[in-house]
Amino acid sequence: MAIIVQKFGGTSVATADKIRKAAKRAMQAVKSGNSAVVVASARGHQTDELIADAMELNLNPPKREMDQLLSTGEQQTVALMAIAMDAMGQPAVSMTGAQIGMITDGVFSKARIKSIDSDTIRRHLNDGKIVIVAGFQGIDDEGNITTLGRGGSDTSAVALAAALGAEVCEIYTDVDGVYTTDPRIFKKAVKINQISYDEMLELASLGAGVMHSRAIEFGKKYNVKIHVRSSLADVEGTLITHEVPQMEGILVSGATIQRELAKIDLVGVDNKPGNAAKIFAHLAKHKVVVNDIIQTERSAEKASISFTVGKNDLSDAKKAIDEIKNAVHCDSVFAREDMAEVSVVGVGMRTHYGVANIMFDALAKAKINIDSITTSEIRISCLVERSQGEKALETVCNAFQLDRPVDKRTY
Amino acid sequence: MAIIVQKFGGTSVATADKIRKAAKRAMQAVKSGNSAVVVASARGHQTDELIADAMELNLNPPKREMDQLLSTGEQQTVALMAIAMDAMGQPAVSMTGAQIGMITDGVFSKARIKSIDSDTIRRHLNDGKIVIVAGFQGIDDEGNITTLGRGGSDTSAVALAAALGAEVCEIYTDVDGVYTTDPRIFKKAVKINQISYDEMLELASLGAGVMHSRAIEFGKKYNVKIHVRSSLADVEGTLITHEVPQMEGILVSGATIQRELAKIDLVGVDNKPGNAAKIFAHLAKHKVVVNDIIQTERSAEKASISFTVGKNDLSDAKKAIDEIKNAVHCDSVFAREDMAEVSVVGVGMRTHYGVANIMFDALAKAKINIDSITTSEIRISCLVERSQGEKALETVCNAFQLDRPVDKRTY
Repeated sequence: MAIIVQKFGGTSVATADKIRKAAKRAMQAVKSGNSAVVVASARGHQTDELIADAMELNLNPPKREMDQLLSTGEQQTVALMAIAMDAMGQPAVSMTGAQIGMITDGVFSKARIKSIDSDTIRRHLNDGKIVIVAGFQGIDDEGNITTLGRGGSDTSAVALAAALGAEVCEIYTDVDGVYTTDPRIFKKAVKINQISYDEMLELASLGAGVMHSRAIEFGKKYNVKIHVRSSLADVEGTLITHEVPQMEGILVSGATIQRELAKIDLVGVDNKPGNAAKIFAHLAKHKVVVNDIIQTERSAEKASISFTVGKNDLSDAKKAIDEIKNAVHCDSVFAREDMAEVSVVGVGMRTHYGVANIMFDALAKAKINIDSITTSEIRISCLVERSQGEKALETVCNAFQLDRPVDKRTY
Repeated sequence: MAIIVQKFGGTSVATADKIRKAAKRAMQAVKSGNSAVVVASARGHQTDELIADAMELNLNPPKREMDQLLSTGEQQTVALMAIAMDAMGQPAVSMTGAQIGMITDGVFSKARIKSIDSDTIRRHLNDGKIVIVAGFQGIDDEGNITTLGRGGSDTSAVALAAALGAEVCEIYTDVDGVYTTDPRIFKKAVKINQISYDEMLELASLGAGVMHSRAIEFGKKYNVKIHVRSSLADVEGTLITHEVPQMEGILVSGATIQRELAKIDLVGVDNKPGNAAKIFAHLAKHKVVVNDIIQTERSAEKASISFTVGKNDLSDAKKAIDEIKNAVHCDSVFAREDMAEVSVVGVGMRTHYGVANIMFDALAKAKINIDSITTSEIRISCLVERSQGEKALETVCNAFQLDRPVDKRTY
């Protein structure tokens, strides 16, 4: 019997009605001849309320105790869902992270999964039960409750699907899948039917929500089919899967925009080994998260180093650079805080030329100036002025025909 | 270093301020040179709210899932208290029932404690931490979360005190101890300084709240000193302890009233072995809880059997008796639903005559008719008409001078 893992986020279990609805989804999977494992998050704003309760007592609460506190939210949801299923005549059993042996390291608030004891779950599945597992949580070797950090329930679900050899891990959300770009900006964006882990990772790191990177990494590592779909409508969503040959034909799967960027240029830095390391180590010391880095040689002796950071980090970044600039003999520093970055992502870039060309050409025709360009194997990003960011995204989406299903594109 | 166990009920941890206050109590015990273990209940109405959430989904929720659900209330409290102590500079660690190895049987919603692994707690105490344990909960041999039923946190606290060889188990409540009787009826009631487990058990079974019987039984079995005291004021409360010789001088420690009783008389039952068993087995089948039983022989052939039940059980009891009366050849059945029972409890009765006499004499002088009398080794109970119940209690309290400390009584 195939095992299906279904994950429901906080908004999908916020009320009694929604819990029943989620329960019915899992029961439907069972009626279709599968075994079902449900992973659930804390209801609605429960986690926020518990955080507020803690903050009232301690503005810097110990992480172990926060994990002990917050893990109760998921535990409540899974018990309630088992209670709901019982009312509908469905045998079910709820499980905490500890009870399914979800062993993590001991890094409270962002623990990493080490192993899962899938025997207990299998035994209950064999008894004809739906197993409802509290997401986001595990225990460390000493029995302390840990939580997995942002997007933790997705990670729990994908890890469970891997451990159980599940046919698919369904992630239920309030959107019906992953879109070619943000439909709030490019209204004609269409749903992506299938996308590779690598593309999804790039999109996630570029701020296109839906799923957290760690869950996707897990899926990639253990080759778990992930189906992102709507908890409201019964339609196919987006399948995240390993790369299949036909994906090579898709030059661009999606496009993103990061709007709140700032850029710092260090001009005339001594061109010798270790200087770049010095600069970015110093930024890290100031807890500045650096986005993209571009280094260009200006001469044998001098180089320029540019990087982008989130707008809110700019003042910290400038402070850090002021402290370090003499040590690297930097001639001058320029900063701009009005930048945005438009990116396109697609595995087809690996084997097809001309993708960058289509992008640059389209932007040029739209009279949008490209400040700088960075690329990875499957991504091209252009930094532009923020005022032109949305126009740039629309231009790129039109150029790559991201308003059409992949088989209808004509380039 | 002596270990002190302190238990705080739901009202004592209902708000952030109250959690801080409870935390300070435990920190005070540490400052005085002790090791402290705190046992806490769920905050205020948390448990009721969770029950309501479950009922919205299922009017008859599975007990295992209710235990899984309700145990989160205590877990939240203990994490929050550890967070509060951290803010005040006190090293502390919170523990669930599972984490301290509180192993119970698998009877969900009213599990019984089988064993406690005190090593983990001792290790933390030796590290200078206050250990804050979630009351009311344990796990069974299969790792399912169980709860201990009514008064469960008291039982957790006393059991922990036993396992740790604690000097005392302090039960903090919103009253400042156990009183000679209900001060709402007999206003001059005084606090009892010291009382034996047996007396406390009798008082608890007669409905005098404060502590649940099971916790007291545990205390008796393992000889744990229990100190019932106020969470609001720093005054001595009531010490529940094993019987000491000087208690023998106290004829009556306390008096109680059970107001909502009904009585059924079976007249002319065939006086042969097994008939009483038949009657009460049938009542048990109807889930009727029987209070007191009196059987009297009327002749070699016929006996009368009377018993009392809660007023609300009367119609069920009558129905059960109607079904069984022919089988035991009962001549006639009488029922009264307007009864109350006044009881006095005291270990001194074991060795002193005349206690019953003082009671009957006082009631006679007050012109209160005694319907029937039942006794145990340390208890005398008189059934009276409900309309005379409170007057009977006051009469008895005055007769035994329950408005005075034990050393000021003159009989």
